[in-house]
Amino acid sequence: MSLIRHESKGILSKVVEANGFVFTAGITPNNTNQDVTAQTREVTAEIDRLLALAGSNKSKIVSATIWVPDIRLRDKMNIAWNEWTGGQNLPGRACIEAKLADPAILVEIAVIATK
Amino acid sequence: MSLIRHESKGILSKVVEANGFVFTAGITPNNTNQDVTAQTREVTAEIDRLLALAGSNKSKIVSATIWVPDIRLRDKMNIAWNEWTGGQNLPGRACIEAKLADPAILVEIAVIATK
Amino acid sequence: MSLIRHESKGILSKVVEANGFVFTAGITPNNTNQDVTAQTREVTAEIDRLLALAGSNKSKIVSATIWVPDIRLRDKMNIAWNEWTGGQNLPGRACIEAKLADPAILVEIAVIATK
Repeated sequence: MSLIRHESKGILSKVVEANGFVFTAGITPNNTNQDVTAQTREVTAEIDRLLALAGSNKSKIVSATIWVPDIRLRDKMNIAWNEWTGGQNLPGRACIEAKLADPAILVEIAVIATK
Repeated sequence: MSLIRHESKGILSKVVEANGFVFTAGITPNNTNQDVTAQTREVTAEIDRLLALAGSNKSKIVSATIWVPDIRLRDKMNIAWNEWTGGQNLPGRACIEAKLADPAILVEIAVIATK
Repeated sequence: MSLIRHESKGILSKVVEANGFVFTAGITPNNTNQDVTAQTREVTAEIDRLLALAGSNKSKIVSATIWVPDIRLRDKMNIAWNEWTGGQNLPGRACIEAKLADPAILVEIAVIATK
């Protein structure tokens, strides 16, 4: 069994490797002074960085959960989602509405990938 | 490592096989002109179909996440849930309220199963 | 393939072992006549008990999903979270707002751990 935690601090680890899988925390943007498309670009870039830390990458994502504070933001979030996936290696996905830690956060994404 | 994606199109894959597990997307009904019990029957039938595609079946589900747009729909959703499980091989489960992609969608379910 | 279900009854199993992982159901407190900090202490103690049943423990949690019915409860939930983790072996985590099965329930937590 391997269990490796990366960027572990405070309340969570940003990404954890375990048994051939990689689990990210729910990732939110640092710069919330942007629209949901730009926030999603920041979040997906951060997920790329975290997956690389754990020896994985976006082509190996099996499942993604996406939260938006208003479901009507979904279409503009999807613009950045589609740029990111390029329509390739698509994961299973659920996108639901939920209030997040700060009202200025317009998107949060958690993924499970293989190594 | 095996990673096989099924019914991959647009923004997501409907079901992904990886490392002995199977992950479905959040599955919603096509016919939203039904009550939540009937919508749940449609969703669980679709999950049966997707698990079969990936070499699994409902007896191997380990975890289910269920979203309903009004938590008071839970009891009527559970009627179809109980028909589906027959009280056998019960997964871990969380059922929470969340607005979904379309207000007419009364239930969304994502599952993780073994192969 | 191993798939072992514990405390399986009614609509769900409280914890399921599969392929070196352990999946809990979304765990809620029995005593809802307490504030969110105390409810979280009850939930994390129950998760400790369930992980032990499945041959795991809190040092092996890879991912946690936390739902609170009002996101402003997050800070008081985190008091109990931090007591529980002791800042060690931190999982990936997402904490989002969602109405839960009963308005008196102030926290629900589901985790994935390794064995």
